[in-house]
Amino acid sequence: MLPDVQLLRPEVPIGLSRVGATGIKKLVQVERKEKRPIILISTFDIFVDLPSDRKGVNLSRNFEAIDEVIESLTSRPVKNVEELNIKIVENLLNRHEYATKAEVIMTSELIMRKKTPTTKQKTQEVVKIFCEAKKWRNGKKLVFIGVEVSGITACPCAQELVRAKAIEELVAMGYDRNEAEKIVNSLPIATHNQRGRASAKIQLTDEFTASIDQLIEIAKSSMSYDIYEILKREDELEVVYKAHQNPRFVEDSVRIMAKATIEKFRDAPNSIVVMFRQENEESIHQHNVIAERVATIGELRNEIGE
Amino acid sequence: MLPDVQLLRPEVPIGLSRVGATGIKKLVQVERKEKRPIILISTFDIFVDLPSDRKGVNLSRNFEAIDEVIESLTSRPVKNVEELNIKIVENLLNRHEYATKAEVIMTSELIMRKKTPTTKQKTQEVVKIFCEAKKWRNGKKLVFIGVEVSGITACPCAQELVRAKAIEELVAMGYDRNEAEKIVNSLPIATHNQRGRASAKIQLTDEFTASIDQLIEIAKSSMSYDIYEILKREDELEVVYKAHQNPRFVEDSVRIMAKATIEKFRDAPNSIVVMFRQENEESIHQHNVIAERVATIGELRNEIGE
Amino acid sequence: MLPDVQLLRPEVPIGLSRVGATGIKKLVQVERKEKRPIILISTFDIFVDLPSDRKGVNLSRNFEAIDEVIESLTSRPVKNVEELNIKIVENLLNRHEYATKAEVIMTSELIMRKKTPTTKQKTQEVVKIFCEAKKWRNGKKLVFIGVEVSGITACPCAQELVRAKAIEELVAMGYDRNEAEKIVNSLPIATHNQRGRASAKIQLTDEFTASIDQLIEIAKSSMSYDIYEILKREDELEVVYKAHQNPRFVEDSVRIMAKATIEKFRDAPNSIVVMFRQENEESIHQHNVIAERVATIGELRNEIGE
Amino acid sequence: MLPDVQLLRPEVPIGLSRVGATGIKKLVQVERKEKRPIILISTFDIFVDLPSDRKGVNLSRNFEAIDEVIESLTSRPVKNVEELNIKIVENLLNRHEYATKAEVIMTSELIMRKKTPTTKQKTQEVVKIFCEAKKWRNGKKLVFIGVEVSGITACPCAQELVRAKAIEELVAMGYDRNEAEKIVNSLPIATHNQRGRASAKIQLTDEFTASIDQLIEIAKSSMSYDIYEILKREDELEVVYKAHQNPRFVEDSVRIMAKATIEKFRDAPNSIVVMFRQENEESIHQHNVIAERVATIGELRNEIGE
Repeated sequence: MLPDVQLLRPEVPIGLSRVGATGIKKLVQVERKEKRPIILISTFDIFVDLPSDRKGVNLSRNFEAIDEVIESLTSRPVKNVEELNIKIVENLLNRHEYATKAEVIMTSELIMRKKTPTTKQKTQEVVKIFCEAKKWRNGKKLVFIGVEVSGITACPCAQELVRAKAIEELVAMGYDRNEAEKIVNSLPIATHNQRGRASAKIQLTDEFTASIDQLIEIAKSSMSYDIYEILKREDELEVVYKAHQNPRFVEDSVRIMAKATIEKFRDAPNSIVVMFRQENEESIHQHNVIAERVATIGELRNEIGE
Repeated sequence: MLPDVQLLRPEVPIGLSRVGATGIKKLVQVERKEKRPIILISTFDIFVDLPSDRKGVNLSRNFEAIDEVIESLTSRPVKNVEELNIKIVENLLNRHEYATKAEVIMTSELIMRKKTPTTKQKTQEVVKIFCEAKKWRNGKKLVFIGVEVSGITACPCAQELVRAKAIEELVAMGYDRNEAEKIVNSLPIATHNQRGRASAKIQLTDEFTASIDQLIEIAKSSMSYDIYEILKREDELEVVYKAHQNPRFVEDSVRIMAKATIEKFRDAPNSIVVMFRQENEESIHQHNVIAERVATIGELRNEIGE
Repeated sequence: MLPDVQLLRPEVPIGLSRVGATGIKKLVQVERKEKRPIILISTFDIFVDLPSDRKGVNLSRNFEAIDEVIESLTSRPVKNVEELNIKIVENLLNRHEYATKAEVIMTSELIMRKKTPTTKQKTQEVVKIFCEAKKWRNGKKLVFIGVEVSGITACPCAQELVRAKAIEELVAMGYDRNEAEKIVNSLPIATHNQRGRASAKIQLTDEFTASIDQLIEIAKSSMSYDIYEILKREDELEVVYKAHQNPRFVEDSVRIMAKATIEKFRDAPNSIVVMFRQENEESIHQHNVIAERVATIGELRNEIGE
Repeated sequence: MLPDVQLLRPEVPIGLSRVGATGIKKLVQVERKEKRPIILISTFDIFVDLPSDRKGVNLSRNFEAIDEVIESLTSRPVKNVEELNIKIVENLLNRHEYATKAEVIMTSELIMRKKTPTTKQKTQEVVKIFCEAKKWRNGKKLVFIGVEVSGITACPCAQELVRAKAIEELVAMGYDRNEAEKIVNSLPIATHNQRGRASAKIQLTDEFTASIDQLIEIAKSSMSYDIYEILKREDELEVVYKAHQNPRFVEDSVRIMAKATIEKFRDAPNSIVVMFRQENEESIHQHNVIAERVATIGELRNEIGE
């Protein structure tokens, strides 16, 4: 019988909020209707707590248990990522009888197929997807799914500044101010634009469900236009033209995601928590700009007057 | 007069929890008594909120203001990092009259001089330091400072397993079990060891203060031994020998930091919040292991029976 | 007909060594005998040159072509990664009639199944794999495949230092020096150990071939022992015990890979180029240590006296 | 006397191209005329070779020596970064009598002060600087300095596409095609733009010298316009307007740096090696695009016809 140091009493009887492992990579297959399963290379962080009244137990040797759970669950396709992660935390609670809480955070890169806007070329796109599940010994559960997508964002402020100057130039060329304004307002006037990243995260409960696909749609809708790995000239024209007709601040993107979420999930209870974040890699600065909103669906409905 | 799109009303009247810029790098000089100032290359993330009843204001054009604040404050040495960051959030609140909250997160790399344990060679060490300050319009303030230091951690569990096997081997060589145990227990027996990173973070208030140096001491004390960029053979022997006499789990490291904090800050109010985290880059796994504790000083005192 | 700026003459008539795209992510499926195909999420960097006598052509609009190549080739399983990458460079040369050279670099994470050493638990492991292919208009070709694997490395130097001190301690306890040496040499004495990463890369030609699996075996053999995501106590004992019986410097690891390569590929022509690299994340330092060797098989055979 | 394993003969008598340490961080102060020294937090990678005829020597214990060199040289301001790095490789050769070659790579972040284009606000900018020095036992030396700067790049191709469509729209509004072209060509028409990074690297010899400041000027000149951490509205207008009057491909940026280098260093020998690289973080793609040129000054002069 091998010795087990973890069973000894700790010298300092203090509880721990989280003990676990980070950066565990696994292949996960998610089922899809009438299609081949989706393949995800996923990274897991997994934790349990170690309460102060359980002074004598140490987690280190139990990582084998945690890992076995993921191993057995990831060998066949799962129905969806939240099912996988809820099973993981339930298994953790079973194995760690002294823990009052178990927690898992999964992040994956999903490679999606899509088509270019004008010439309909086939291309692929990388979307980050997240799932977090926490479960308490008393049955309480907290589950979130989320996505992060890329897009182009064009700045409304700089476009307005450039437009004002363009009007003055046409006036200087002899055009009437009204005509100058009409011309400039009908043309795709320059502004700075850049890669943006929109994130949307939503709470799931036994009564309320949402899918990764729905969140991708919401996040995609928030930026000035979609971006593509392949763009033929006709497509590139479309992306740039449309993005400049649809300039957006990071604040706009977050607000648009919030509104789209309320509209898409009309049946969601008021208590559901959502988080939105837009980050733009500003082409005119070395720093990034961000906007965030964390709220319940009820709070958003209230603010928006619905 | 240039147009200002930010003054328009947003189409979607939803408030934002945070709007700001991330990744702003600045040189910061911190004063020291009777010594040259410390030089930090610091990275700032700065945010304000945008309440739902202020529908018509947009932050984007105000980044210039945020940046000016850091600019004017960072051109001369500051007394300490918390002073710098509190001034930043106060300036942000002044400039953004519609914001109810301003927030800054500063991270820096501090290059410290130190000496090797045995031969007393001069060497340098990189320590990460953090400061977070949040201030609300109503005067409420939340300030934290923190550090992350590196060290070596040796695993107690594997050492006990190896020790048990070593005893069997001496018994097989003909030694009496008692003598075998005595020999093995007096020798530095192998275990896996690795780079660890200990983080300690503490809340500061108008009444309670703590320094980066104190936190570095606390975090350093939590691992099996300190590590060095230069190690002569005598020093290397010392580091390895001492680390193996002092094996520690991630759980131990967090508990030791918690205890050291209570002992160092006997006058700290019970309400002060502290956070400790230990992460080990396990030499026997591809994943890392971590332990964390977030608590008030009062909760820790209670658990530890003081 | 849309305008095409790329067809204009450049203002500065200077050739370019490489023009291309980096960070293109694709799902790649590689065939295996009697098994399901391996799934790789791969990142591609692709380049062609732009010679100085072709002043008027600009590559930017041709990324669509590059991307289409990867797209069409990655939709069905390929025989092996070098076949995929050679096809990519051949397609690039066809599409860019002015280019004299095309180049692709692919990197992937491969998740391998394996079993723990003692209790034979199933576990997974992440291995990085690489492929580089370059082809010139005149038919010349340069192809490499490579791998990077993780393992534990124990330091021989520190172990010898600790052993010497352990002997002195036994002598001080009253043991005869000869007996003290015998005891210490038969026990797993402490040293610092850490995560190491071994890389091996080899040139492939029309006449000489090698597989990713063979390179993984070579790289794995170079460190003190293998590492695992799951380790039951019996396994952990085995890993730590064996690693300490097999201490290795970064220099040793590179030399062992070089020797293993010569032995595994007895039929390889002398001209084949190989590269080996070992990097250890030193547990006693903040910095890493590395060793590298770039050579032809012939040079290695010569040095090793074969 | 402590044992020294490094002095033993290796089991596998194979030479090593590079043995060393990576990621050593140091504070470096560089002198400036009539100003306070510049402070750099620098990261060093340092290597020597280990020839095959020196079978019995092992480098590991000599990192102390390498580190001491940097330590003694970095405690006072150096004249320039190349002086520092040449001294490091010379010291390495002295200490490693069996090595035929020593090598150092230094990378630093330099925080530069600058002013915004229109309102002349003070702001700071981060520039990456590099220095590589290699020295052989026979006296041969190879030294490079380099920089990487950020800027905005606007795409000429997409702008031409958008311009063509804008002309058609004015024609549809009833304007004569000639007038439509005149209007569109006089206005800042939209295109995609993004953060770009321009790198320039140049060889230094005993006869030929160049400064980091000169390379920064060259790299800055290559993109569509400079970028700033602070931009008041007048400044932002200037940046966006000017960038759109100066659209550039990655190929253009590299060619412009090559030309500027020839013009700035008229006295440089033909044998001097230079490297230029432009990387754009495309706002319409998830991938980046790059162009590179490696050449001698003589080759560039020849191509450009000077």
